[in-house]
Amino acid sequence: MSDLPLSGVRVVDLTRILSGPFCAMILGDLGADVVKIESPKGGDPVRGQGHIVDGLSWYFAGFNRNKRSVALDLRRPEGLAVLERLLAGADILTENYRPGVLDEMGLTPARLAQINPRLIVVSVNGYGSTGPYANRPAFDFIAQAMSGYMATNGTPATGPLRTGPPLTDLIAGLYAALGAVSALRARDAGGPAQRVEASMMMSILSMMAYLSSGALATGRDPVTTGNDHPIVAPYGLFRAADGDIAVAPSTDVFVARFLGEIGLKHLLDDPRFADNARRVENRAELNRLVDDALAHGTQAHWIERLNRAGVPCGKVQRLTEALADPQVAAQEMVLEVPHPGHGTVKMTGFPIKFSETPLQLRHPTPDLGAQTDAVLAEAGYGPDEITGLRDRGLLG
Amino acid sequence: MSDLPLSGVRVVDLTRILSGPFCAMILGDLGADVVKIESPKGGDPVRGQGHIVDGLSWYFAGFNRNKRSVALDLRRPEGLAVLERLLAGADILTENYRPGVLDEMGLTPARLAQINPRLIVVSVNGYGSTGPYANRPAFDFIAQAMSGYMATNGTPATGPLRTGPPLTDLIAGLYAALGAVSALRARDAGGPAQRVEASMMMSILSMMAYLSSGALATGRDPVTTGNDHPIVAPYGLFRAADGDIAVAPSTDVFVARFLGEIGLKHLLDDPRFADNARRVENRAELNRLVDDALAHGTQAHWIERLNRAGVPCGKVQRLTEALADPQVAAQEMVLEVPHPGHGTVKMTGFPIKFSETPLQLRHPTPDLGAQTDAVLAEAGYGPDEITGLRDRGLLG
Repeated sequence: MSDLPLSGVRVVDLTRILSGPFCAMILGDLGADVVKIESPKGGDPVRGQGHIVDGLSWYFAGFNRNKRSVALDLRRPEGLAVLERLLAGADILTENYRPGVLDEMGLTPARLAQINPRLIVVSVNGYGSTGPYANRPAFDFIAQAMSGYMATNGTPATGPLRTGPPLTDLIAGLYAALGAVSALRARDAGGPAQRVEASMMMSILSMMAYLSSGALATGRDPVTTGNDHPIVAPYGLFRAADGDIAVAPSTDVFVARFLGEIGLKHLLDDPRFADNARRVENRAELNRLVDDALAHGTQAHWIERLNRAGVPCGKVQRLTEALADPQVAAQEMVLEVPHPGHGTVKMTGFPIKFSETPLQLRHPTPDLGAQTDAVLAEAGYGPDEITGLRDRGLLG
Repeated sequence: MSDLPLSGVRVVDLTRILSGPFCAMILGDLGADVVKIESPKGGDPVRGQGHIVDGLSWYFAGFNRNKRSVALDLRRPEGLAVLERLLAGADILTENYRPGVLDEMGLTPARLAQINPRLIVVSVNGYGSTGPYANRPAFDFIAQAMSGYMATNGTPATGPLRTGPPLTDLIAGLYAALGAVSALRARDAGGPAQRVEASMMMSILSMMAYLSSGALATGRDPVTTGNDHPIVAPYGLFRAADGDIAVAPSTDVFVARFLGEIGLKHLLDDPRFADNARRVENRAELNRLVDDALAHGTQAHWIERLNRAGVPCGKVQRLTEALADPQVAAQEMVLEVPHPGHGTVKMTGFPIKFSETPLQLRHPTPDLGAQTDAVLAEAGYGPDEITGLRDRGLLG
């Protein structure tokens, strides 16, 4: 077995909730040793959220694998001293406090450089650590609203719509993980250890693609169009004999192939549908004709046939269907992970595939403080010192 | 000025449209030298898409900065030979062909290893390169549908809803960029050069958070709730004197602060609203009372006041508002980039902030083939060879 990409990298992880823990989990998935520091009083609040089975939150388990847990009271100077000793041997510190909180704890950039001049500090926050909103508390729903993203999600009837998953947390966490690995490479190539951050609002704003470029070019806002493409037809959901299929022929070539496969090639000779502009104009009528043609076959039939012809096509799957999809199985995207004392937990897998060093589940999600003693021992604490710290209520 | 994190890294980029180009742009933003190989006949199709100003697509410009462009006909053996010479000196090859196409071009893993045993091959695709859907054409709308994501976006009235931006392209591209940098680190630490890939369907599936963990734990699908939180109240959009604000108090502590700030603390003594379960049950009545209370102040008033009290709160901004937001300006998230011959292009900025090596616009988005001669010269081609290739129609 080859080493993993980040084998040998040590991360001290102060994050909680989702954006920061997702960043730290990705570093752990890539092979880093991630030590999650949690409050001895209950730990990360997500331990109590989502569906709890046999005493373990599957939401927590799915987003905190490949970490070890140390329960340590950081509100007391003696706890902070332990943290500083752990940081002395670390490569990366991850945190998602509100900007300024690390400083308030005494962990200023100057102090951190004193403790460990090679330490890379990775922050995930709501709005960035500078600017008028830097001190605002972060929350996915608000980042979706402030970034303009919500205004592009929905239909004219719904108005601005929050998307279901907390995507701004996850995308910011992913950017932060990329920042961490990039900073590590730069440091190991002789550059400085540095601070890296990603924010929820700016991360989603960077993903608006043609919507942001269009808004910047014209000064006008995009119009929400639901499942219709703003400027392409046919495109969207259509009705096969046993349910909807999504079809996305993006250019004239694929429109011709699509209409050919469903027996409607003649429509391209019809003045109402001869080019894309006219098809958009007569979308309702075109969609009706397509629905009629598709009614003669099942979803499976059309999906197989259209994809074979190169026309992107698929089913709108419920989430449980997607999780049971054969492609998801082939990609090992649902893992079944034994968690001693809590049964076997199912969680989504590793979306980055490496040919020589495939990612792996090295540590199931730890119980709170499960590795407190082991990690402190590695940092040089003797058994008596650990007992003393525990007696004084600093450890969990 | 310090070097950038990926200074000295050479990328040969065969991608087009969005997922792959986004991955390659991120590598360029991080400092890599990215050589985008395009067909001499028009190049990347996105050059002709979106809003075109002074002969340049702002969509293309915003997602292909920090690259150089070489126009080279890869359909002819002589063109492929040029590509192989460029690959011999590269660290990373990025591609987003359908799985198998690289092999059909003769660039099998074995051949690539022969050309350059240190080459890392980074692929972005729709479904992954193995499994029953591997050969299907990729498209964001279809990946949204197949992954179960669409089924979680929307309201009970809308049904499954495509989200506005092509997020599966962008998230897969971001994962692929992280895979690339991680593989680079592993290689430079003595590991093997390897193939890395990320797919659109699996990337978005990895971001379903408590929705996927809940579905896996219960076997039941989440219910779409639009802007209401499924299990928390008050939460969502509320009406201030001059427009809506989004408010997300996620725990009892913040609910109490929220109601206190708006003069409704007494509601917590009302049996209808005494705990979260009862507040969810009586959400409509609670929301009405909150709207009434908020009507006495402006959006700006409440956003300032509630954030100061630690209650996450913001405005639902239109995209043009967000792009003009003072925080976005403070974070330098709208760049104005002179493009010789095409005026000044506005584009979104760099969401990862590095304290010592801030990312920068080193190359405006190139015209098709703008660096063909320079890149070939660097690879050792003499002026006469380049002229010969051009005379034979291989270059643009």
